[in-house]
Amino acid sequence: MLLAVDWGTSSLRGALIDPQGRVLSERASARGILSVPAGGFGEVFDAEFGDWSALADLCLISGMAGSRQGWAEAAYCACPAGFGDLSRQLLWLPAAPGPARARRAIVPGLCCETDGVPDVMRGEEVQVFGALALLGLQDATLVLPGTHSKWVTARAGRVQHFRTAMTGEFYALLRSQSLLSRTLPPDDGDLDEPAFLDGVSRALRGPGLLQTAFSVRTLALFERTAPAAMPSYLSGLVIGEELRAQPLEAGGEVVAMGSAALLTRYRLALAQRRISVRAIGAEATWHGLRALADNLETP
Amino acid sequence: MLLAVDWGTSSLRGALIDPQGRVLSERASARGILSVPAGGFGEVFDAEFGDWSALADLCLISGMAGSRQGWAEAAYCACPAGFGDLSRQLLWLPAAPGPARARRAIVPGLCCETDGVPDVMRGEEVQVFGALALLGLQDATLVLPGTHSKWVTARAGRVQHFRTAMTGEFYALLRSQSLLSRTLPPDDGDLDEPAFLDGVSRALRGPGLLQTAFSVRTLALFERTAPAAMPSYLSGLVIGEELRAQPLEAGGEVVAMGSAALLTRYRLALAQRRISVRAIGAEATWHGLRALADNLETP
Repeated sequence: MLLAVDWGTSSLRGALIDPQGRVLSERASARGILSVPAGGFGEVFDAEFGDWSALADLCLISGMAGSRQGWAEAAYCACPAGFGDLSRQLLWLPAAPGPARARRAIVPGLCCETDGVPDVMRGEEVQVFGALALLGLQDATLVLPGTHSKWVTARAGRVQHFRTAMTGEFYALLRSQSLLSRTLPPDDGDLDEPAFLDGVSRALRGPGLLQTAFSVRTLALFERTAPAAMPSYLSGLVIGEELRAQPLEAGGEVVAMGSAALLTRYRLALAQRRISVRAIGAEATWHGLRALADNLETP
Repeated sequence: MLLAVDWGTSSLRGALIDPQGRVLSERASARGILSVPAGGFGEVFDAEFGDWSALADLCLISGMAGSRQGWAEAAYCACPAGFGDLSRQLLWLPAAPGPARARRAIVPGLCCETDGVPDVMRGEEVQVFGALALLGLQDATLVLPGTHSKWVTARAGRVQHFRTAMTGEFYALLRSQSLLSRTLPPDDGDLDEPAFLDGVSRALRGPGLLQTAFSVRTLALFERTAPAAMPSYLSGLVIGEELRAQPLEAGGEVVAMGSAALLTRYRLALAQRRISVRAIGAEATWHGLRALADNLETP
Protein backbone atom coordinates (compact mmCIF):
# COMPACT_ATOMS: atom_id res chain seq x y z
CA MET A 1 0.00 0.00 0.00
CA LEU A 2 1.35 3.44 -0.97
CA LEU A 3 0.85 6.73 0.81
CA ALA A 4 1.36 9.30 -1.98
CA VAL A 5 1.91 12.90 -0.93
CA ASP A 6 2.14 16.06 -3.02
CA TRP A 7 3.46 18.77 -0.68
CA GLY A 8 3.55 22.10 -2.43
CA THR A 9 4.14 25.73 -1.50
CA SER A 10 0.59 26.47 -0.45
CA SER A 11 -1.16 23.12 -0.25
CA LEU A 12 -0.69 19.57 1.00
CA ARG A 13 -2.46 16.66 -0.67
CA GLY A 14 -2.29 12.96 0.02
CA ALA A 15 -3.77 9.71 -1.27
CA LEU A 16 -3.82 6.13 -0.10
CA ILE A 17 -3.26 3.95 -3.18
CA ASP A 18 -3.58 0.18 -3.32
CA PRO A 19 -1.18 -2.10 -5.26
CA GLN A 20 -3.60 -2.14 -8.22
CA GLY A 21 -3.33 1.66 -8.45
CA ARG A 22 -6.79 2.37 -7.05
CA VAL A 23 -7.04 5.57 -5.01
CA LEU A 24 -8.79 4.42 -1.82
CA SER A 25 -8.96 7.83 -0.19
CA GLU A 26 -7.75 11.40 -0.70
CA ARG A 27 -7.11 14.35 1.59
CA ALA A 28 -6.11 17.96 1.01
CA SER A 29 -5.30 20.82 3.37
CA ALA A 30 -3.81 24.30 3.26
CA ARG A 31 -0.67 23.16 5.12
CA GLY A 32 1.71 24.04 2.28
CA ILE A 33 5.39 24.35 3.16
CA LEU A 34 5.09 28.11 3.68
CA SER A 35 2.75 27.41 6.62
CA VAL A 36 5.16 25.00 8.34
CA PRO A 37 7.78 26.35 10.76
CA ALA A 38 11.37 25.12 10.32
CA GLY A 39 11.73 21.73 11.96
CA GLY A 40 7.97 21.22 12.08
CA PHE A 41 7.50 19.06 8.99
CA GLY A 42 7.48 15.68 10.77
CA GLU A 43 4.85 16.91 13.18
CA VAL A 44 2.57 18.29 10.46
CA PHE A 45 3.00 15.09 8.47
CA ASP A 46 2.02 12.95 11.45
CA ALA A 47 -0.99 15.13 12.21
CA GLU A 48 -2.22 14.90 8.61
CA PHE A 49 -1.24 11.35 7.68
CA GLY A 50 -0.33 9.49 10.92
CA ASP A 51 -3.25 7.07 10.53
CA TRP A 52 -2.46 6.31 6.89
CA SER A 53 1.26 5.85 7.67
CA ALA A 54 0.30 2.86 9.82
CA LEU A 55 -1.54 1.29 6.85
CA ALA A 56 1.07 1.91 4.15
CA ASP A 57 4.38 0.16 3.42
CA LEU A 58 5.82 3.11 1.60
CA CYS A 59 5.34 6.86 1.52
CA LEU A 60 6.57 8.96 -1.42
CA ILE A 61 6.51 12.74 -1.14
CA SER A 62 6.89 15.03 -4.14
CA GLY A 63 6.88 18.80 -4.43
CA MET A 64 8.42 21.72 -2.55
CA ALA A 65 8.82 19.58 0.60
CA GLY A 66 12.12 18.65 -1.07
CA SER A 67 13.31 22.25 -1.39
CA ARG A 68 15.77 24.09 0.83
CA GLN A 69 12.81 25.64 2.67
CA GLY A 70 11.07 22.25 2.94
CA TRP A 71 11.37 19.10 5.03
CA ALA A 72 14.76 18.01 3.69
CA GLU A 73 16.61 19.12 0.57
CA ALA A 74 16.39 16.50 -2.18
CA ALA A 75 18.53 16.58 -5.33
CA TYR A 76 17.66 18.01 -8.72
CA CYS A 77 18.12 15.46 -11.53
CA ALA A 78 19.67 17.12 -14.57
CA CYS A 79 17.69 16.91 -17.84
CA PRO A 80 17.37 14.93 -19.99
CA ALA A 81 16.00 12.86 -17.10
CA GLY A 82 13.80 9.78 -17.01
CA PHE A 83 11.68 8.04 -14.47
CA GLY A 84 14.66 5.89 -13.41
CA ASP A 85 16.65 8.99 -12.44
CA LEU A 86 13.92 9.97 -9.97
CA SER A 87 13.87 6.56 -8.34
CA ARG A 88 17.67 6.38 -8.10
CA GLN A 89 17.89 9.77 -6.37
CA LEU A 90 15.11 9.44 -3.82
CA LEU A 91 15.96 11.05 -0.49
CA TRP A 92 15.12 8.54 2.24
CA LEU A 93 13.98 10.07 5.53
CA PRO A 94 14.96 8.57 8.92
CA ALA A 95 12.39 6.08 10.22
CA ALA A 96 9.72 7.74 12.32
CA PRO A 97 9.34 6.69 15.94
CA GLY A 98 6.10 5.02 16.95
CA PRO A 99 3.83 2.54 15.21
CA ALA A 100 4.06 3.93 11.67
CA ARG A 101 5.75 1.34 9.48
CA ALA A 102 5.86 3.12 6.10
CA ARG A 103 9.34 3.94 4.84
CA ARG A 104 9.36 7.55 3.65
CA ALA A 105 11.22 9.20 0.80
CA ILE A 106 11.21 12.58 -0.91
CA VAL A 107 11.22 12.59 -4.71
CA PRO A 108 13.97 14.71 -6.33
CA GLY A 109 13.16 17.61 -8.62
CA LEU A 110 14.49 18.32 -12.10
CA CYS A 111 16.85 21.00 -13.36
CA CYS A 112 17.93 22.06 -16.82
CA GLU A 113 19.88 24.91 -18.34
CA THR A 114 19.05 27.37 -21.11
CA ASP A 115 21.42 30.05 -22.37
CA GLY A 116 23.56 29.75 -19.22
CA VAL A 117 20.63 30.02 -16.80
CA PRO A 118 19.33 27.14 -14.70
CA ASP A 119 15.66 26.30 -14.37
CA VAL A 120 14.04 24.06 -11.76
CA MET A 121 10.87 22.17 -10.92
CA ARG A 122 9.69 20.18 -7.93
CA GLY A 123 6.52 18.13 -8.07
CA GLU A 124 5.65 18.78 -11.72
CA GLU A 125 8.08 16.02 -12.84
CA VAL A 126 5.88 13.39 -11.15
CA GLN A 127 2.81 14.81 -12.89
CA VAL A 128 4.60 14.77 -16.22
CA PHE A 129 5.74 11.15 -15.95
CA GLY A 130 2.29 10.17 -14.66
CA ALA A 131 0.60 11.90 -17.59
CA LEU A 132 2.91 10.33 -20.18
CA ALA A 133 2.18 6.90 -18.71
CA LEU A 134 -1.59 7.47 -18.51
CA LEU A 135 -1.73 8.71 -22.11
CA GLY A 136 0.76 6.15 -23.43
CA LEU A 137 2.97 8.91 -24.85
CA GLN A 138 6.76 8.97 -25.27
CA ASP A 139 7.02 12.35 -26.98
CA ALA A 140 4.92 15.37 -26.04
CA THR A 141 4.82 19.05 -25.21
CA LEU A 142 3.21 19.56 -21.81
CA VAL A 143 2.10 22.67 -19.96
CA LEU A 144 1.34 22.91 -16.24
CA PRO A 145 -0.19 26.39 -15.89
CA GLY A 146 -0.18 28.18 -12.56
CA THR A 147 1.70 30.70 -10.42
CA HIS A 148 4.84 29.53 -12.20
CA SER A 149 3.78 27.73 -15.38
CA LYS A 150 6.02 24.94 -16.61
CA TRP A 151 6.45 24.12 -20.32
CA VAL A 152 7.95 20.67 -20.73
CA THR A 153 9.35 18.85 -23.76
CA ALA A 154 9.33 15.05 -23.43
CA ARG A 155 11.27 12.83 -25.85
CA ALA A 156 11.46 9.04 -25.67
CA GLY A 157 9.74 9.09 -22.29
CA ARG A 158 12.28 11.45 -20.76
CA VAL A 159 12.03 15.13 -19.88
CA GLN A 160 14.32 16.69 -22.45
CA HIS A 161 13.94 20.29 -21.39
CA PHE A 162 11.57 22.70 -19.66
CA ARG A 163 11.00 26.42 -19.07
CA THR A 164 9.25 28.33 -16.29
CA ALA A 165 7.00 31.35 -16.93
CA MET A 166 5.88 33.44 -13.94
CA THR A 167 2.46 33.96 -15.50
CA GLY A 168 0.17 33.46 -12.51
CA GLU A 169 2.37 35.56 -10.28
CA PHE A 170 2.52 38.44 -12.79
CA TYR A 171 -1.26 38.32 -13.08
CA ALA A 172 -1.69 38.48 -9.29
CA LEU A 173 0.80 41.37 -8.98
CA LEU A 174 -0.84 43.41 -11.75
CA ARG A 175 -4.31 42.50 -10.57
CA SER A 176 -3.84 43.44 -6.91
CA GLN A 177 -0.69 45.52 -6.40
CA SER A 178 -0.21 47.68 -9.49
CA LEU A 179 -1.67 50.98 -10.59
CA LEU A 180 -4.02 48.94 -12.80
CA SER A 181 -5.70 47.48 -9.72
CA ARG A 182 -7.30 50.89 -9.05
CA THR A 183 -9.58 50.64 -12.06
CA LEU A 184 -10.23 46.89 -11.82
CA PRO A 185 -13.34 45.61 -10.07
CA PRO A 186 -13.04 42.65 -7.68
CA ASP A 187 -12.36 39.45 -9.64
CA ASP A 188 -15.33 37.13 -9.24
CA GLY A 189 -13.45 34.44 -11.15
CA ASP A 190 -16.02 34.50 -13.96
CA LEU A 191 -14.57 34.40 -17.44
CA ASP A 192 -15.67 37.05 -19.93
CA GLU A 193 -14.69 35.08 -23.00
CA PRO A 194 -14.63 37.86 -25.65
CA ALA A 195 -12.55 40.13 -23.37
CA PHE A 196 -10.19 37.26 -22.54
CA LEU A 197 -9.72 36.40 -26.21
CA ASP A 198 -9.16 40.06 -27.06
CA GLY A 199 -6.38 40.14 -24.45
CA VAL A 200 -4.83 36.94 -25.82
CA SER A 201 -4.78 38.10 -29.42
CA ARG A 202 -3.42 41.50 -28.49
CA ALA A 203 -0.62 39.87 -26.49
CA LEU A 204 0.18 37.47 -29.33
CA ARG A 205 0.61 40.44 -31.70
CA GLY A 206 3.13 42.01 -29.28
CA PRO A 207 5.07 44.20 -28.54
CA GLY A 208 5.25 42.79 -25.01
CA LEU A 209 3.53 42.91 -21.64
CA LEU A 210 5.34 46.04 -20.37
CA GLN A 211 3.41 47.92 -23.06
CA THR A 212 0.21 45.92 -23.51
CA ALA A 213 -0.54 45.95 -19.75
CA PHE A 214 -0.96 49.74 -19.92
CA SER A 215 -3.98 49.19 -22.17
CA VAL A 216 -5.88 47.99 -19.07
CA ARG A 217 -5.65 51.56 -17.85
CA THR A 218 -6.35 53.38 -21.10
CA LEU A 219 -9.26 51.18 -22.22
CA ALA A 220 -10.89 51.94 -18.85
CA LEU A 221 -10.03 55.66 -19.13
CA PHE A 222 -11.72 55.93 -22.54
CA GLU A 223 -14.51 53.57 -21.48
CA ARG A 224 -13.86 51.22 -24.38
CA THR A 225 -14.22 48.05 -22.31
CA ALA A 226 -16.74 47.41 -19.52
CA PRO A 227 -15.04 47.40 -16.09
CA ALA A 228 -16.45 43.95 -15.27
CA ALA A 229 -14.65 42.51 -18.32
CA MET A 230 -11.22 43.94 -17.44
CA PRO A 231 -9.94 41.13 -15.17
CA SER A 232 -10.62 38.63 -17.99
CA TYR A 233 -8.90 40.96 -20.47
CA LEU A 234 -5.82 41.22 -18.22
CA SER A 235 -5.80 37.45 -17.77
CA GLY A 236 -5.82 37.11 -21.56
CA LEU A 237 -2.93 39.57 -21.91
CA VAL A 238 -0.77 37.64 -19.45
CA ILE A 239 -1.58 34.14 -20.72
CA GLY A 240 -1.19 35.37 -24.31
CA GLU A 241 2.24 36.76 -23.42
CA GLU A 242 3.21 33.33 -22.06
CA LEU A 243 2.09 31.66 -25.31
CA ARG A 244 3.79 34.25 -27.53
CA ALA A 245 7.16 33.05 -26.19
CA GLN A 246 6.52 29.34 -26.82
CA PRO A 247 7.92 27.66 -29.92
CA LEU A 248 4.68 25.92 -30.94
CA GLU A 249 3.75 24.68 -34.38
CA ALA A 250 0.22 25.41 -35.61
CA GLY A 251 -1.78 22.20 -35.84
CA GLY A 252 0.05 20.62 -32.91
CA GLU A 253 -1.16 19.30 -29.58
CA VAL A 254 -0.26 20.16 -26.00
CA VAL A 255 -0.94 18.07 -22.92
CA ALA A 256 -2.23 20.40 -20.19
CA MET A 257 -2.59 19.73 -16.47
CA GLY A 258 -4.18 22.02 -13.89
CA SER A 259 -7.44 23.27 -12.46
CA ALA A 260 -10.53 23.12 -14.68
CA ALA A 261 -10.82 26.93 -14.67
CA LEU A 262 -7.24 27.42 -15.86
CA LEU A 263 -7.49 24.66 -18.45
CA THR A 264 -10.54 26.37 -19.97
CA ARG A 265 -8.47 29.54 -20.41
CA TYR A 266 -5.45 27.76 -21.86
CA ARG A 267 -7.65 25.81 -24.25
CA LEU A 268 -9.19 29.04 -25.55
CA ALA A 269 -5.84 30.81 -25.74
CA LEU A 270 -3.98 27.95 -27.44
CA ALA A 271 -6.75 27.68 -30.04
CA GLN A 272 -5.65 31.13 -31.24
CA ARG A 273 -2.33 29.55 -32.19
CA ARG A 274 -4.18 26.55 -33.69
CA ILE A 275 -2.96 24.21 -30.96
CA SER A 276 -5.31 21.63 -29.49
CA VAL A 277 -5.29 20.67 -25.83
CA ARG A 278 -5.40 17.24 -24.26
CA ALA A 279 -6.34 17.79 -20.61
CA ILE A 280 -5.41 15.55 -17.74
CA GLY A 281 -6.35 15.97 -14.09
CA ALA A 282 -4.88 15.44 -10.63
CA GLU A 283 -4.80 11.68 -11.20
CA ALA A 284 -1.47 12.19 -13.02
CA THR A 285 0.29 12.84 -9.70
CA TRP A 286 -1.08 9.70 -8.05
CA HIS A 287 -0.37 7.62 -11.14
CA GLY A 288 3.21 8.93 -11.26
CA LEU A 289 3.92 8.21 -7.60
CA ARG A 290 2.31 4.74 -7.81
CA ALA A 291 4.48 3.91 -10.84
CA LEU A 292 7.55 5.20 -9.01
CA ALA A 293 6.75 2.90 -6.07
CA ASP A 294 6.26 -0.07 -8.40
CA ASN A 295 9.62 0.47 -10.10
CA LEU A 296 11.57 0.97 -6.91
CA GLU A 297 14.66 -1.07 -6.27
CA THR A 298 14.54 -1.94 -2.59
CA PRO A 299 17.34 0.01 -0.94
CA MET B 1 6.73 86.79 -15.61
CA LEU B 2 5.71 83.12 -15.76
CA LEU B 3 4.95 80.76 -12.91
CA ALA B 4 5.63 77.32 -14.42
CA VAL B 5 4.29 74.30 -12.54
CA ASP B 6 4.82 70.60 -13.16
CA TRP B 7 2.25 68.80 -10.97
CA GLY B 8 2.72 65.07 -11.16
CA THR B 9 1.41 62.00 -9.40
CA SER B 10 3.88 62.05 -6.55
CA SER B 11 5.63 65.42 -6.76
CA LEU B 12 4.93 69.11 -7.30
CA ARG B 13 7.58 71.38 -8.82
CA GLY B 14 7.43 75.03 -9.71
CA ALA B 15 9.66 77.74 -11.18
CA LEU B 16 9.49 81.46 -11.56
CA ILE B 17 10.72 82.34 -15.05
CA ASP B 18 11.42 85.81 -16.41
CA PRO B 19 10.55 86.97 -19.95
CA GLN B 20 14.08 86.16 -21.11
CA GLY B 21 13.61 82.54 -20.06
CA ARG B 22 15.84 82.74 -16.98
CA VAL B 23 14.73 80.54 -14.08
CA LEU B 24 14.79 82.93 -11.12
CA SER B 25 13.82 80.41 -8.50
CA GLU B 26 12.68 76.80 -8.19
CA ARG B 27 10.70 74.84 -5.61
CA ALA B 28 9.77 71.18 -5.22
CA SER B 29 7.63 69.30 -2.71
CA ALA B 30 6.06 65.89 -2.26
CA ARG B 31 2.53 67.30 -2.76
CA GLY B 32 1.80 65.18 -5.84
CA ILE B 33 -1.85 64.85 -6.84
CA LEU B 34 -2.22 61.59 -4.90
CA SER B 35 -1.58 63.54 -1.68
CA VAL B 36 -4.28 66.15 -2.41
CA PRO B 37 -7.87 65.52 -1.29
CA ALA B 38 -10.62 66.12 -3.87
CA GLY B 39 -11.42 69.83 -3.99
CA GLY B 40 -8.18 70.73 -2.22
CA PHE B 41 -6.04 71.65 -5.21
CA GLY B 42 -6.57 75.43 -5.05
CA GLU B 43 -5.63 75.47 -1.41
CA VAL B 44 -2.44 73.42 -1.91
CA PHE B 45 -1.51 75.61 -4.87
CA ASP B 46 -1.93 78.79 -2.84
CA ALA B 47 0.08 77.36 0.05
CA GLU B 48 2.94 76.40 -2.27
CA PHE B 49 2.90 79.23 -4.78
CA GLY B 50 0.72 82.04 -3.36
CA ASP B 51 3.67 84.44 -3.11
CA TRP B 52 4.83 83.72 -6.67
CA SER B 53 1.28 84.06 -8.02
CA ALA B 54 1.35 87.70 -6.95
CA LEU B 55 4.54 88.26 -8.96
CA ALA B 56 3.58 86.42 -12.17
CA ASP B 57 1.26 87.43 -15.00
CA LEU B 58 0.61 83.88 -16.06
CA CYS B 59 0.71 80.44 -14.50
CA LEU B 60 0.89 77.31 -16.67
CA ILE B 61 0.43 73.91 -15.03
CA SER B 62 1.36 70.66 -16.76
CA GLY B 63 1.15 67.04 -15.59
CA MET B 64 -1.39 64.89 -13.79
CA ALA B 65 -3.08 67.97 -12.30
CA GLY B 66 -5.03 67.89 -15.59
CA SER B 67 -6.23 64.31 -15.10
CA ARG B 68 -9.63 63.14 -13.89
CA GLN B 69 -8.14 62.70 -10.41
CA GLY B 70 -6.46 66.13 -10.57
CA TRP B 71 -7.43 69.76 -10.22
CA ALA B 72 -9.59 69.94 -13.36
CA GLU B 73 -9.76 67.59 -16.32
CA ALA B 74 -7.97 69.02 -19.33
CA ALA B 75 -8.27 67.60 -22.84
CA TYR B 76 -5.98 65.14 -24.58
CA CYS B 77 -4.74 66.45 -27.95
CA ALA B 78 -4.75 63.66 -30.53
CA CYS B 79 -1.43 62.86 -32.22
CA PRO B 80 0.11 63.96 -34.46
CA ALA B 81 0.07 67.06 -32.25
CA GLY B 82 2.23 70.16 -32.21
CA PHE B 83 2.96 72.93 -29.81
CA GLY B 84 0.09 74.99 -31.21
CA ASP B 85 -2.40 72.26 -30.30
CA LEU B 86 -1.37 72.52 -26.66
CA SER B 87 -1.79 76.29 -26.59
CA ARG B 88 -5.20 76.12 -28.33
CA GLN B 89 -6.55 73.59 -25.83
CA LEU B 90 -5.37 75.11 -22.57
CA LEU B 91 -7.91 74.75 -19.77
CA TRP B 92 -8.27 78.16 -18.12
CA LEU B 93 -9.07 78.04 -14.40
CA PRO B 94 -11.44 80.56 -12.77
CA ALA B 95 -9.63 83.60 -11.39
CA ALA B 96 -8.52 83.14 -7.81
CA PRO B 97 -9.90 85.49 -5.14
CA GLY B 98 -7.43 87.76 -3.40
CA PRO B 99 -4.37 89.65 -4.58
CA ALA B 100 -2.96 87.00 -6.96
CA ARG B 101 -3.07 88.42 -10.46
CA ALA B 102 -1.67 85.52 -12.52
CA ARG B 103 -4.10 83.94 -14.93
CA ARG B 104 -3.87 80.17 -14.55
CA ALA B 105 -4.25 77.41 -17.12
CA ILE B 106 -3.73 73.66 -17.22
CA VAL B 107 -1.87 72.27 -20.24
CA PRO B 108 -3.65 69.44 -22.07
CA GLY B 109 -2.10 65.99 -22.43
CA LEU B 110 -1.62 63.95 -25.58
CA CYS B 111 -3.29 60.78 -26.76
CA CYS B 112 -2.63 58.45 -29.64
CA GLU B 113 -3.86 55.06 -30.79
CA THR B 114 -2.01 51.87 -31.71
CA ASP B 115 -3.72 48.72 -32.91
CA GLY B 116 -7.09 49.89 -31.55
CA VAL B 117 -5.74 50.79 -28.10
CA PRO B 118 -5.38 54.35 -26.83
CA ASP B 119 -2.28 55.63 -25.07
CA VAL B 120 -1.95 58.81 -23.03
CA MET B 121 0.57 61.17 -21.47
CA ARG B 122 0.31 64.23 -19.25
CA GLY B 123 3.34 66.39 -18.55
CA GLU B 124 5.82 64.57 -20.77
CA GLU B 125 4.53 66.48 -23.86
CA VAL B 126 5.85 69.74 -22.39
CA GLN B 127 9.24 68.12 -21.74
CA VAL B 128 9.31 66.76 -25.28
CA PHE B 129 8.54 70.11 -26.94
CA GLY B 130 11.00 71.83 -24.58
CA ALA B 131 13.74 69.33 -25.45
CA LEU B 132 13.14 69.62 -29.20
CA ALA B 133 13.40 73.42 -28.93
CA LEU B 134 16.51 73.33 -26.71
CA LEU B 135 18.27 70.90 -29.04
CA GLY B 136 17.02 72.54 -32.24
CA LEU B 137 15.52 69.26 -33.45
CA GLN B 138 12.45 68.66 -35.61
CA ASP B 139 12.75 64.88 -35.87
CA ALA B 140 13.80 62.64 -33.01
CA THR B 141 13.12 59.53 -30.99
CA LEU B 142 12.78 60.42 -27.32
CA VAL B 143 12.55 58.33 -24.18
CA LEU B 144 11.36 59.50 -20.78
CA PRO B 145 12.18 56.55 -18.50
CA GLY B 146 10.36 56.08 -15.20
CA THR B 147 7.47 54.31 -13.53
CA HIS B 148 5.71 54.46 -16.89
CA SER B 149 8.35 55.09 -19.55
CA LYS B 150 7.29 57.02 -22.64
CA TRP B 151 8.81 56.42 -26.08
CA VAL B 152 8.05 59.32 -28.38
CA THR B 153 8.51 59.78 -32.12
CA ALA B 154 8.74 63.42 -33.24
CA ARG B 155 8.45 64.42 -36.90
CA ALA B 156 8.59 67.98 -38.21
CA GLY B 157 8.41 69.31 -34.66
CA ARG B 158 5.21 67.44 -33.85
CA VAL B 159 4.64 64.36 -31.69
CA GLN B 160 3.78 61.75 -34.29
CA HIS B 161 3.24 58.85 -31.98
CA PHE B 162 4.20 57.46 -28.56
CA ARG B 163 4.04 54.29 -26.48
CA THR B 164 4.01 53.67 -22.73
CA ALA B 165 5.98 50.85 -21.07
CA MET B 166 5.30 50.08 -17.40
CA THR B 167 8.97 49.38 -16.78
CA GLY B 168 9.55 51.13 -13.45
CA GLU B 169 6.34 49.76 -12.01
CA PHE B 170 7.15 46.18 -13.05
CA TYR B 171 10.60 46.55 -11.48
CA ALA B 172 9.09 47.78 -8.20
CA LEU B 173 6.50 44.98 -8.14
CA LEU B 174 9.08 42.26 -8.83
CA ARG B 175 11.60 43.87 -6.49
CA SER B 176 9.30 44.22 -3.49
CA GLN B 177 6.12 42.18 -3.89
CA SER B 178 6.99 39.04 -5.82
CA LEU B 179 8.47 35.72 -4.78
CA LEU B 180 11.80 37.04 -6.13
CA SER B 181 11.89 39.66 -3.38
CA ARG B 182 12.62 36.90 -0.84
CA THR B 183 16.10 36.28 -2.20
CA LEU B 184 16.90 39.91 -3.04
CA PRO B 185 18.85 42.04 -0.56
CA PRO B 186 17.69 45.60 0.12
CA ASP B 187 18.40 47.82 -2.89
CA ASP B 188 21.00 50.42 -1.95
CA GLY B 189 20.55 52.06 -5.37
CA ASP B 190 24.16 51.24 -6.32
CA LEU B 191 24.62 49.94 -9.82
CA ASP B 192 26.53 46.69 -10.33
CA GLU B 193 27.39 47.34 -13.96
CA PRO B 194 28.36 43.80 -15.09
CA ALA B 195 25.22 42.32 -13.50
CA PHE B 196 23.06 45.04 -15.01
CA LEU B 197 24.52 44.48 -18.48
CA ASP B 198 24.11 40.72 -18.11
CA GLY B 199 20.42 41.31 -17.38
CA VAL B 200 20.05 43.65 -20.36
CA SER B 201 21.66 41.27 -22.84
CA ARG B 202 19.69 38.31 -21.55
CA ALA B 203 16.44 40.28 -21.91
CA LEU B 204 17.38 41.42 -25.42
CA ARG B 205 17.88 37.78 -26.45
CA GLY B 206 14.36 36.91 -25.23
CA PRO B 207 12.12 34.96 -24.79
CA GLY B 208 10.35 37.51 -22.58
CA LEU B 209 10.18 38.77 -19.02
CA LEU B 210 7.69 36.14 -17.78
CA GLN B 211 10.50 33.63 -18.29
CA THR B 212 13.69 35.64 -17.80
CA ALA B 213 12.49 37.02 -14.44
CA PHE B 214 12.57 33.48 -13.01
CA SER B 215 16.35 33.46 -13.51
CA VAL B 216 16.60 35.88 -10.55
CA ARG B 217 15.44 32.97 -8.42
CA THR B 218 17.45 30.18 -10.00
CA LEU B 219 20.74 32.11 -10.25
CA ALA B 220 20.43 32.76 -6.50
CA LEU B 221 19.45 29.13 -5.82
CA PHE B 222 22.55 27.82 -7.60
CA GLU B 223 24.70 30.65 -6.22
CA ARG B 224 25.76 31.74 -9.70
CA THR B 225 25.38 35.47 -9.00
CA ALA B 226 26.25 37.32 -5.79
CA PRO B 227 23.09 38.37 -3.90
CA ALA B 228 24.26 42.01 -3.77
CA ALA B 229 24.31 42.10 -7.60
CA MET B 230 20.80 40.75 -8.07
CA PRO B 231 18.84 44.04 -7.89
CA SER B 232 21.05 45.43 -10.70
CA TYR B 233 20.57 42.22 -12.68
CA LEU B 234 16.76 42.47 -12.31
CA SER B 235 16.89 46.14 -13.30
CA GLY B 236 18.81 45.10 -16.43
CA LEU B 237 16.23 42.41 -17.24
CA VAL B 238 13.34 44.86 -17.02
CA ILE B 239 15.00 47.75 -18.90
CA GLY B 240 16.31 45.29 -21.50
CA GLU B 241 12.77 43.98 -21.96
CA GLU B 242 11.59 47.55 -22.60
CA LEU B 243 14.32 48.06 -25.22
CA ARG B 244 13.68 44.71 -26.89
CA ALA B 245 10.22 45.95 -27.90
CA GLN B 246 11.44 49.25 -29.42
CA PRO B 247 11.90 49.56 -33.17
CA LEU B 248 15.39 51.14 -33.01
CA GLU B 249 17.99 51.13 -35.74
CA ALA B 250 21.58 50.37 -34.73
CA GLY B 251 23.74 53.47 -35.08
CA GLY B 252 20.89 55.83 -34.22
CA GLU B 253 20.41 58.33 -31.44
CA VAL B 254 17.79 58.72 -28.73
CA VAL B 255 17.07 61.84 -26.69
CA ALA B 256 16.63 60.78 -23.05
CA MET B 257 15.18 62.76 -20.16
CA GLY B 258 15.08 61.73 -16.52
CA SER B 259 17.08 61.38 -13.33
CA ALA B 260 20.86 61.03 -13.65
CA ALA B 261 20.76 57.51 -12.12
CA LEU B 262 18.17 56.30 -14.64
CA LEU B 263 19.93 57.95 -17.58
CA THR B 264 23.15 56.11 -16.68
CA ARG B 265 21.26 52.81 -16.90
CA TYR B 266 19.53 53.66 -20.18
CA ARG B 267 22.81 54.85 -21.71
CA LEU B 268 24.45 51.51 -20.82
CA ALA B 269 21.49 49.47 -22.00
CA LEU B 270 20.98 51.35 -25.27
CA ALA B 271 24.68 50.94 -26.08
CA GLN B 272 23.98 47.20 -26.33
CA ARG B 273 21.70 48.02 -29.27
CA ARG B 274 24.32 50.44 -30.62
CA ILE B 275 22.17 53.46 -29.89
CA SER B 276 23.74 56.62 -28.50
CA VAL B 277 22.00 58.81 -25.94
CA ARG B 278 21.69 62.57 -25.87
CA ALA B 279 20.66 63.45 -22.31
CA ILE B 280 18.65 66.48 -21.29
CA GLY B 281 17.65 67.53 -17.79
CA ALA B 282 14.72 69.09 -15.96
CA GLU B 283 15.29 72.39 -17.81
CA ALA B 284 13.25 70.92 -20.70
CA THR B 285 10.03 71.34 -18.70
CA TRP B 286 10.69 74.99 -17.87
CA HIS B 287 11.80 75.72 -21.42
CA GLY B 288 8.64 74.11 -22.79
CA LEU B 289 6.31 76.04 -20.51
CA ARG B 290 8.13 79.34 -21.18
CA ALA B 291 7.83 78.76 -24.93
CA LEU B 292 4.15 77.93 -24.52
CA ALA B 293 3.62 81.19 -22.63
CA ASP B 294 5.45 83.16 -25.32
CA ASN B 295 3.32 81.71 -28.11
CA LEU B 296 0.03 82.17 -26.38
CA GLU B 297 -2.77 83.96 -28.13
CA THR B 298 -4.45 86.10 -25.49
CA PRO B 299 -7.85 84.56 -24.86
